[in-house]
Amino acid sequence: MDKLKRIELKNVDVTQGFWENRQKINRDVTIYAVRDRFEDTGRFKAFNFSYTPENGEPMPHYFWDSDIAKWLESAAYIIEKSPNAELQEKIEDIIDKIEEHQDKNGYFNIYHTVVEPDNRFKNRDHHELYCLGHLIEAAVAYYNATGKDRFINILDKYIDHVIKVFVIEKSSAFKTPGHEEIELALYRLYEVRPDEKYVKLAEFFLNERGKKENGLGDWDRDCYNQSHAEVRDQHVAMGHCVRANYLYSGMADEARNFGDEKMLEACRDLFDDMAEKKMYISGGIGSSHHGEAFTIPYDLPNDTAYAETCASIALAMFANRMKDIDIDSKYADMVERQIYNGIISGVSLDGKSFFYENPLEINLDDHVRHTSVKAGDRLPITQRLEVFGCSCCPPNVTRIIANIGEYIYSYDDERIFVHQYMGSSASFDGSCINVETHYPVDGKVKINVANAKNKRLLLRIPAWCESFEISAGYKMFKGYAEIEIASDIFEVELTMEMLPVLVAANPHVRADAGAAAVMMGPVLYCAEKVDNDFDLWDARISKNAKFTFEYSDVFNANILSCEASLTDETSVKALYMPLRDVKQKSASLKLIPYFAFANRGESDMRVWFKTL
Amino acid sequence: MDKLKRIELKNVDVTQGFWENRQKINRDVTIYAVRDRFEDTGRFKAFNFSYTPENGEPMPHYFWDSDIAKWLESAAYIIEKSPNAELQEKIEDIIDKIEEHQDKNGYFNIYHTVVEPDNRFKNRDHHELYCLGHLIEAAVAYYNATGKDRFINILDKYIDHVIKVFVIEKSSAFKTPGHEEIELALYRLYEVRPDEKYVKLAEFFLNERGKKENGLGDWDRDCYNQSHAEVRDQHVAMGHCVRANYLYSGMADEARNFGDEKMLEACRDLFDDMAEKKMYISGGIGSSHHGEAFTIPYDLPNDTAYAETCASIALAMFANRMKDIDIDSKYADMVERQIYNGIISGVSLDGKSFFYENPLEINLDDHVRHTSVKAGDRLPITQRLEVFGCSCCPPNVTRIIANIGEYIYSYDDERIFVHQYMGSSASFDGSCINVETHYPVDGKVKINVANAKNKRLLLRIPAWCESFEISAGYKMFKGYAEIEIASDIFEVELTMEMLPVLVAANPHVRADAGAAAVMMGPVLYCAEKVDNDFDLWDARISKNAKFTFEYSDVFNANILSCEASLTDETSVKALYMPLRDVKQKSASLKLIPYFAFANRGESDMRVWFKTL
Repeated sequence: MDKLKRIELKNVDVTQGFWENRQKINRDVTIYAVRDRFEDTGRFKAFNFSYTPENGEPMPHYFWDSDIAKWLESAAYIIEKSPNAELQEKIEDIIDKIEEHQDKNGYFNIYHTVVEPDNRFKNRDHHELYCLGHLIEAAVAYYNATGKDRFINILDKYIDHVIKVFVIEKSSAFKTPGHEEIELALYRLYEVRPDEKYVKLAEFFLNERGKKENGLGDWDRDCYNQSHAEVRDQHVAMGHCVRANYLYSGMADEARNFGDEKMLEACRDLFDDMAEKKMYISGGIGSSHHGEAFTIPYDLPNDTAYAETCASIALAMFANRMKDIDIDSKYADMVERQIYNGIISGVSLDGKSFFYENPLEINLDDHVRHTSVKAGDRLPITQRLEVFGCSCCPPNVTRIIANIGEYIYSYDDERIFVHQYMGSSASFDGSCINVETHYPVDGKVKINVANAKNKRLLLRIPAWCESFEISAGYKMFKGYAEIEIASDIFEVELTMEMLPVLVAANPHVRADAGAAAVMMGPVLYCAEKVDNDFDLWDARISKNAKFTFEYSDVFNANILSCEASLTDETSVKALYMPLRDVKQKSASLKLIPYFAFANRGESDMRVWFKTL
Repeated sequence: MDKLKRIELKNVDVTQGFWENRQKINRDVTIYAVRDRFEDTGRFKAFNFSYTPENGEPMPHYFWDSDIAKWLESAAYIIEKSPNAELQEKIEDIIDKIEEHQDKNGYFNIYHTVVEPDNRFKNRDHHELYCLGHLIEAAVAYYNATGKDRFINILDKYIDHVIKVFVIEKSSAFKTPGHEEIELALYRLYEVRPDEKYVKLAEFFLNERGKKENGLGDWDRDCYNQSHAEVRDQHVAMGHCVRANYLYSGMADEARNFGDEKMLEACRDLFDDMAEKKMYISGGIGSSHHGEAFTIPYDLPNDTAYAETCASIALAMFANRMKDIDIDSKYADMVERQIYNGIISGVSLDGKSFFYENPLEINLDDHVRHTSVKAGDRLPITQRLEVFGCSCCPPNVTRIIANIGEYIYSYDDERIFVHQYMGSSASFDGSCINVETHYPVDGKVKINVANAKNKRLLLRIPAWCESFEISAGYKMFKGYAEIEIASDIFEVELTMEMLPVLVAANPHVRADAGAAAVMMGPVLYCAEKVDNDFDLWDARISKNAKFTFEYSDVFNANILSCEASLTDETSVKALYMPLRDVKQKSASLKLIPYFAFANRGESDMRVWFKTL
């Protein structure tokens, strides 16, 4: 098993281009926007434990702790790179409150203290362990940012309590978390505080999961939270997508830690099942709002797509782990697909509002009263909101953008991998690497490596890239161009041809049959009615369409245009008529990055176009 | 206003070809199959009025009366053409029971006598007037078949009671029927017993409908049963499709009777709204199961199509009235579209089982558990059933097939119209007409008219027909070829070129964008997986596809084949890949008449194919 090490956030700076811009918005706008909405909705106040049924305060939800935990984690990443007293103070304030309201036995959960104190660890869907997992991730980020271990110490006490209840006394009403997360969090904690008890608890939850004696006997319910089979026997992605990918991330950590080949095999199969059969071209997974879940292979309707922002984030997290233990460029390709499409479509360009669901098609008519064909189904909303009742996605986007540096590089004693092309610099083991690029605006990447002579530099060649040049000799290794680092100050240029291209789906994807989408490099494109004053469903693109493109400051990306074929409506004489009598005319079709849809008011939107 | 007269059933015989075969199955199989299932389910027994909550009999539904009424009407049409003691006895038996259990005041309704006797005319949705309407249609058919007026006399007493309650005393809890039907039935009764009180009652219900003071103030609910506006102000088809078209039929009768041009204008607009914006290519209307209703224009999804069999029948009834008062071939074209597609798809080839809904696409995968994208919506069933809980469609199909002769001809003093091409003979006003044809297997029609010299013969040239020849001189008149009848024994041949043709939908029909269906003459075609061992969603048809066809005894129609283009799966390397790398291969695509789908077990089925 491979065991590449990632370069940790503290040693990576995003310095230029697309992600520098995104991190700035995240740091200057989004972190405060999420905070303010969480203040408005009582999520921060809930940490006062002052709720009573009588006093008019909003009743804490049983997973509010996790919303704030992700915000804390995001804020910690931000202060790690850019010290900020205001954010730091807020973090400290919340940690104080957690400390203050922690039970003597270590337990901490707002809902199960102020609302249902008698039902601790009695309801598997009440997310106590999930909330703990997110608090652990926040505590680790806080530790990395500040060097202070007090948040970890608080949670260490809670973890001891969990070990007592679940492992020793077995007094809980369920064996394993209903919503996975704690497994990967325990492994994350183990990285900064290598106490074996954390690994043992993660392993316990992983190994107990799906054991017949722990199952509910309800196949749907068991699939929903991945309890239908023991984890090493899971080879098909099922159920709630976020739960699934948090679990798979923990499984990858477990595989790495123990060199567990059977677990790795399960992870590989689960990854491939998603990547090859159950993923939108945007990277979105979970095509159904029923259970926020995977359905059957190739079932990827565009208009009702659930494709939760958190699910894309979770899959990026899983893929980012896999890239280091099973070297293959497909994993970093997956991260790339998510970060340029399905994840950042979840946040508006101004950084203030969010999508929980990310449809690949919006037709406003469908939202009209009396379009009752859809009334029994559920269409995603058409404009981002500042906060949701279940507001898991906003602080999740915030934390992954703040932490994006950890997705760029990894290394071992002999090799340095560049997985993502972002203007950045990093240091590790006495070496330094610096990347200059406008990617994904163009495919030129200049890489400078210092003090790594005789190691090898491995540059991912993305699956979308059909032609590239490298200013040094290389050979291909599992999707990476492998280059000998010939000097102490080594410079190399990678030039990937990046042109708009029509992309087809596997023919089994019925929703996309006879259609194509447009990508340019890793960026998926869409057309919005606001730019195209005609019926987007009527527009067809020729297989041989020529595209033009130009950079747009508004989108921080290229915008494209091509010729589309429309029905000449003057030739349409009836609802149904001979095809040969229907005349066509042409129009210019403007395409913007999919991640930027719904930033200019409500509009019809389309990704897949019928081809001619 | 035009006022053509139809040739009544007693004077028309269907003698040959497609409809002779369909009537035989209807007469020999279907009428008994429906009877037997209605016996099994207690619908006939309900006429004993023996139900009590304690005795274990099934509780009569409040519209069971109408199910049996339509069966009686069907049986009456059948015995009118083919005397049959068994059927006649059953009819007489039910009439006896109606007479026996009729209230002294004339009221008759099973449910509101044995279940809720205190709530007569209190619930607008309890279909009492709808049931009465169907009983009236049955009584008229019985009178025409037997010359006996006892059934009419029974109902006449009930009608007097309705007049008393609704018109004179106004003591009912609602003003107009929740489910229209009685209006057209009263006009039908008026034809055989021209008592003005029937017309006045029909007019009362029509005129009161949609008056603001009678509305419920609930826009959705009012639209649902066409009470959102006064009938002469209705120009857009809304709400429950069967209710709507029964109402429109009554409106057409009213327009004819009073020469009411404003009413005719409303009827025209309603017809055009359906025909131009809200109808499947099969003729199906009501794309949504929510309210079994129209939605917005062009909203015609194929897989979730509701397209109730009864709605197609109701629209055929409306169109058949319109053809006589607003001469234009589009009305008989509509009848034709319905009778060869959306209506007879509702009954199996063996005549024993039925569809309530008529989807234009079946993908069996969608019916698999965990295809949860559809779980919130509702897919039509994939195989016909012998009876339904709400079993309105089976006896409705039975009655229209038995009565199809009334759709063929109409006439006035100077003209004879042939609207539908069916092997048949008819007599009227001392003249005779005889039609020989294998239509719709081919487009040759031989017509013989006796004793009509100096009148004109008008032959509908269907909208689908782009080329035809007539063995006599003609000029076109509103879609009909108008021919002088030059001799006492006048013979003319019409030869319509009938070839398979690709048909496109208006580009606003998003579900069919970039796709085409295949029709041959009036018959819509579909492909079933059972004939085509490949993914039907992947198959594309060239715009220039060549079709071959041959007659099939199994389907009593032509079957077609053409070349289709499929993805060469060996060229598919990933879930998403450049379109230019996807190779195509060809396969033979077999097409059967849409009306015959789902007769050979469960199968994927498709009407619309993407074009190349």
